[in-house]
Order: sequence, then C-alpha cells, then structure tokens
Amino acid sequence: MLISPVALRAFTTDIFLAIGCSDTHASRAADVLLSADLRGIDSHGVARLKGYVRLWENQRINTRPNITIVHQTPTTATVDGDAGLGLVVAPFAMQLAIEKAAQYGSGWVSVRNSNHFGIAAYHALMAVKEDMIGFAMTNASPLVAPTFSSERLLGTNPMCYAFPAGKYPPVVVDMATSAAANGKLEIAQRLGSQVPEGWIQDNAGNFTTDPHALAQGGALVPLGSDYTHGSHKGFGLSATVDILSAVLSGANYGPWVPPFVSFLQPPADPVGLGIGHFVGAMRVDGFRPVDEFKTHLDNWIARFKSAATVQPGQQVIIPGEPELTAQADRTRNGIPLIGPVVIDLNTLAEKFGLKKL
Amino acid sequence: MLISPVALRAFTTDIFLAIGCSDTHASRAADVLLSADLRGIDSHGVARLKGYVRLWENQRINTRPNITIVHQTPTTATVDGDAGLGLVVAPFAMQLAIEKAAQYGSGWVSVRNSNHFGIAAYHALMAVKEDMIGFAMTNASPLVAPTFSSERLLGTNPMCYAFPAGKYPPVVVDMATSAAANGKLEIAQRLGSQVPEGWIQDNAGNFTTDPHALAQGGALVPLGSDYTHGSHKGFGLSATVDILSAVLSGANYGPWVPPFVSFLQPPADPVGLGIGHFVGAMRVDGFRPVDEFKTHLDNWIARFKSAATVQPGQQVIIPGEPELTAQADRTRNGIPLIGPVVIDLNTLAEKFGLKKL
Repeated sequence: MLISPVALRAFTTDIFLAIGCSDTHASRAADVLLSADLRGIDSHGVARLKGYVRLWENQRINTRPNITIVHQTPTTATVDGDAGLGLVVAPFAMQLAIEKAAQYGSGWVSVRNSNHFGIAAYHALMAVKEDMIGFAMTNASPLVAPTFSSERLLGTNPMCYAFPAGKYPPVVVDMATSAAANGKLEIAQRLGSQVPEGWIQDNAGNFTTDPHALAQGGALVPLGSDYTHGSHKGFGLSATVDILSAVLSGANYGPWVPPFVSFLQPPADPVGLGIGHFVGAMRVDGFRPVDEFKTHLDNWIARFKSAATVQPGQQVIIPGEPELTAQADRTRNGIPLIGPVVIDLNTLAEKFGLKKL
Repeated sequence: MLISPVALRAFTTDIFLAIGCSDTHASRAADVLLSADLRGIDSHGVARLKGYVRLWENQRINTRPNITIVHQTPTTATVDGDAGLGLVVAPFAMQLAIEKAAQYGSGWVSVRNSNHFGIAAYHALMAVKEDMIGFAMTNASPLVAPTFSSERLLGTNPMCYAFPAGKYPPVVVDMATSAAANGKLEIAQRLGSQVPEGWIQDNAGNFTTDPHALAQGGALVPLGSDYTHGSHKGFGLSATVDILSAVLSGANYGPWVPPFVSFLQPPADPVGLGIGHFVGAMRVDGFRPVDEFKTHLDNWIARFKSAATVQPGQQVIIPGEPELTAQADRTRNGIPLIGPVVIDLNTLAEKFGLKKL
C-alpha cells in the first residue's frame, strides 16, 4: 500500500507516545524513522517500529530517559543515553556537537548506553542545515566477521559524512562498512533468491550464496569482500566505528554489543553500557568562506556527474543522490509499504488501541 | 641490499639538504620517508626520493616554503603549504591540530598548496604520542575511476585513523580507498605477472588483469571493486577524502590534482593550489580517562586477536600490526632496498656530489 508521509508520521508518533515517550521524543523518533522511509531506506524506517516496541516490552529501551553529559571539554563530550531510543539520544548528541562547533569551530560527541539510532544520514544532516560538515556513526549487533575469521564480531557499523553544497543537494556518504547491508540479505531471503558471492560466509567461514546462511551461524563480510580485494580495509573502517562509538564512550563493543532483536539476550558479561554512537560537526567557515566552499563543491559535483561512463545511459552517482530522488518521489506520491510491514503496524495499532492504517 | 636505518636516514637527509631544505625540514622529511621504509611500506619510502627531487628540478616543489595559517578558529584551521614538501607541511598542520586539541579538546586542519605527504600513519601517530586519536588523509593524482565511469577522477586518497592502546601497540587503520594500492600494481608490472580481477579496469572501463592497463588509459577502482560489492562505498570514502582535503582548503580536487610524476604537467586550468591534506587530533581524555580507554582498547584487541579463524594457523590481523612487525625486524636487521632503488639513490648522490650508499 501507498501511504502519505503525513499520515504515517502521525501513526508512528502515536505508537511512540503509546510506549511512554514524551511529545518531543515521540515526534523526533517518528521524524527519524520517516526520514528513512522517505529516503528509500526501507530497512531503517517504520519496518523497525515493531522491533523498538519489543525491546521496550523487554525493558531494554527506556522511553523516559534522562540523557546526560557525563564528561566534556569545549569541543568534546561523552553522553549517556540512559538506555533511551537512539532515535532521540543521537539527535541530542548531535545538537550538542553543533552547539560546540558554533562556539569553537568543531564539536565531537561519543555516546554510550543508547540503542539503534535509525539512519546515520539523519543525524549528519542536522549539521548540514547549519552550514557545517556532519559526521555520524554507530556500532551495532555483531553480524560481520573480520578478515580471516569465522566469528561475528562487528556490526554493519555505518559511517556517514555529509557536506553542504550550493545549487546541488548536499553530498551525503552514508554506508555500512560491510560489503552488503543486512537489508539486502533480508530481501533475498523473502524472495527466495541467492545472493552474489562475496556478501556472506557460512558458519565455517567459506563464501556462500545462500542468504539464510546468516541465520545458521554465518556472517556478513567487511567491505572489500576478501583479503585480495581489501576486506581488511573494510574491517579497519568497521573497527574505527566501533572504537570511536564505544571504546571511547564506555558502551559495549565488538561481540558484546547487545542484539537489536528482542528474542536474543544481551551478553551476560557486558563491557560497557548499551550500544555506542559517535557524531560530530565542523563549521565550514572554520576553514574557508561558506560560499567559496559551496561553489567548489558544486563544481566537484558537476564534474563527477558529467564523467564519461562505461555503458551508455549510465551516470556517476553522487553520494546521497538516489536518496533525494526517492524523497522527492515519496513526498509527492506517498510511501510504499509492503504487506508484512502493514500487518506489523496494524498489530501494533491494535495492541495500543489506535486506529489502523 | 640491506642498509641500516641510521645510514639511510643520514643519506636521505643529505639529499634533502642538497635540494635546499633547512636542517629542520630535511631531518623531518627524511624521518617521514624512513618511517615508511621501516614499516614495510616500500612504495612510500626512499623509493620516492627521486620523484621529489625531479619535482623540485621542475620547480613544482619549493624547498624553502613559508608555511602559513591562512584562516582559523579555536579548533579549525586552513594551512597554506607554499608548494612545500608534504613531508614537512603535513607535520606542521598536525602539530597545529595537536596544539588546538591540547587546549580545546580537538583540532582539525585542512591543507592546500602542498605535495605528496608520505604515509598517512606518520602524521596520525604524532597525535597518538600525546594520548590523542589521530586522523590523516590526503588527496592524490587521479588514478581511480568512480563507479560506472571510465575516467580517472580520484587519487588512491588514503585515510588513516590511529588510536593509542595500553599494553598493545596503537591501532592504526591506514588504507588507500581504492581496492588495490598503486604500489601493488607496480610490483606486478616489474614481475610481469597478472593482477587479480577487481583491481583495475582498461580504458573502456572493463575489468582486466593486465597490470599495464593503467599506463594505457585504464584506472584503479574504488574499494569494493564493483557496484555489486559496494564500490560506490569506496567511491564515497574517496570523495570524502577529496572534499575534506581540497574543497575545504582551496587545493585542487578530483581530476585537477597535479600528478606526482614530473613528466606529466599539472592541468592548465587549476581549481586551487597544489594538493590537499586533512589532519586532526582529539584528546582521549576529552571523552573518558585515558587509562580506562586504553584498558578497553587492549580488551578489544585481545578479543579480536583470539577470534576463531577460517583456516588453522591464521590470525585476525589488528590494523597496524604488520607494519610494527616490519618495523621491529627492519630496525634490528636493516632495510632491504631493491636494485633499481639503489641505482636511483646512487644517481642522486652522484648528482649532488654525495657519498654513494
């Protein structure tokens, strides 16, 4: 079904209110999820609403968090999310980074005791609105094996860099540090199709094209797929995200990161609190006048968009461009929801005595 | 031949003095090159000395630069390298970032009008010595085609993140954002061997295993190799390096970056000055006490080192570990130089009336 963004946002806000969020938090959390659905990142939008509710039911998400700054300098801080929704904790942290950047040129916040924060781009784009460069990353439940290992020790640990342009939309690099995102695997599982070699390995660490291998003890692999093609680099990026988000903040890292799914228990021997994020903001005019930067970034974008292509009809895709195309389309025409998601959402509505979609 | 680090450092310093560097600059430049040779990154060590001298002969490197801070806030700055050696400009910028971090928690410096800066890890590790997290990246001569393009529009644009550990050596992620580094291609060219599919494409944009394809108008490809395996992510990382290093500082970016080799002229229509770098430092204790951070990073390292492996006898490689093993070996046993490099170095010695190796 196709649903209007306005209606879906209202529905989502009501669910967050029903599980105890304040008005402000419910509205923010809905905004983060809707931004994913609008941008075409269906795996990170309202499809996850059921998951957040289940974690709340299991008392692993606190919908009335007292989010605090536990340590800070003029341009750095550690924030404790009090087991709140990452959807509200991460914007709190980014707002703090932006305030520090406004005063001192840059601001950097590492976050512990949080939960899944939705799409990284949402948070990084908060900085772009202020003519700042935005950074956002998070660790996540272990699904990825480091190069040479058969163990799941890292999440898909996304990193996002966002830059304000002039006449073009912002450049937004928002990427899982694994070769393939889990969402793509889920699509193959639903369709009963195979996945390309180089996306996942089985429980012995051998490449497989069976998308169900992950559920049988297999693992996603880092960007680069194998050592010959640089999977140790993808591992290095994922490690960077894990260290900045969790070793630096006091969250859980590596295999200790609590799972997003409620039917799996968090490890019994935690090394920190919840999951971790890392966000940052730098004022463009801390380096050069904003209009100069934007003029040159526009020139950069124009040059890459007009690059010669391998096949006729192709175009070099500027990072962030497909998401904006989706956003324009879905804002106008509505957000498509697949059957199972509609069923999940209506089950939630029923549970809380709300009007179904 | 095997040569002692002390002798090679003295030789290299003398060459830099011979082309007009000050004592301080010659010593620093030699230190950066030697650190590459010691760490086993032969492509970035004294093998490049000839290249720097040729650029100086072509008046494209200024060995008496007046390196200046052209713009700054408490935690950000833009530095103009005055066409100096990146080997001295980047340490200047990193020193500035460290001073800002010491005072305000973090420091970030974008650099224009510079040249090749050697290995990124050298600069990032300057911060690690101060119990800070170090960041270093640079753009470079265009050799890499973005996903879907047959044009060389980006350099191998390395990024480096370095973290101080406790009982273990620092974690140092230092990686080209291309699937393969140019150095690996050069080895295959010398040996007359083929390279793996997924490293380079020919001038029409099709994958090839011929290492000479690059010289015939082909290109390296971004980390991920092809779109199915996430090459758009490698492109996004490379774009991030290009924007932070050059669009932000006022250096040349994308296809306008001047070539490192002296026989190729810089583009006639520059969009900025020289090449660009981006370096940064964040105090660990801006987030949590240093000893806590190091204890947890040690725990992280120990867990990953002991991970189950796919093959017996393998071990998960902690980023930076192979370089430290090389450094221990080469410090003790000397630095191995291949014949062509010895010939190049002795030709330089002759040119400047210095003692041969």
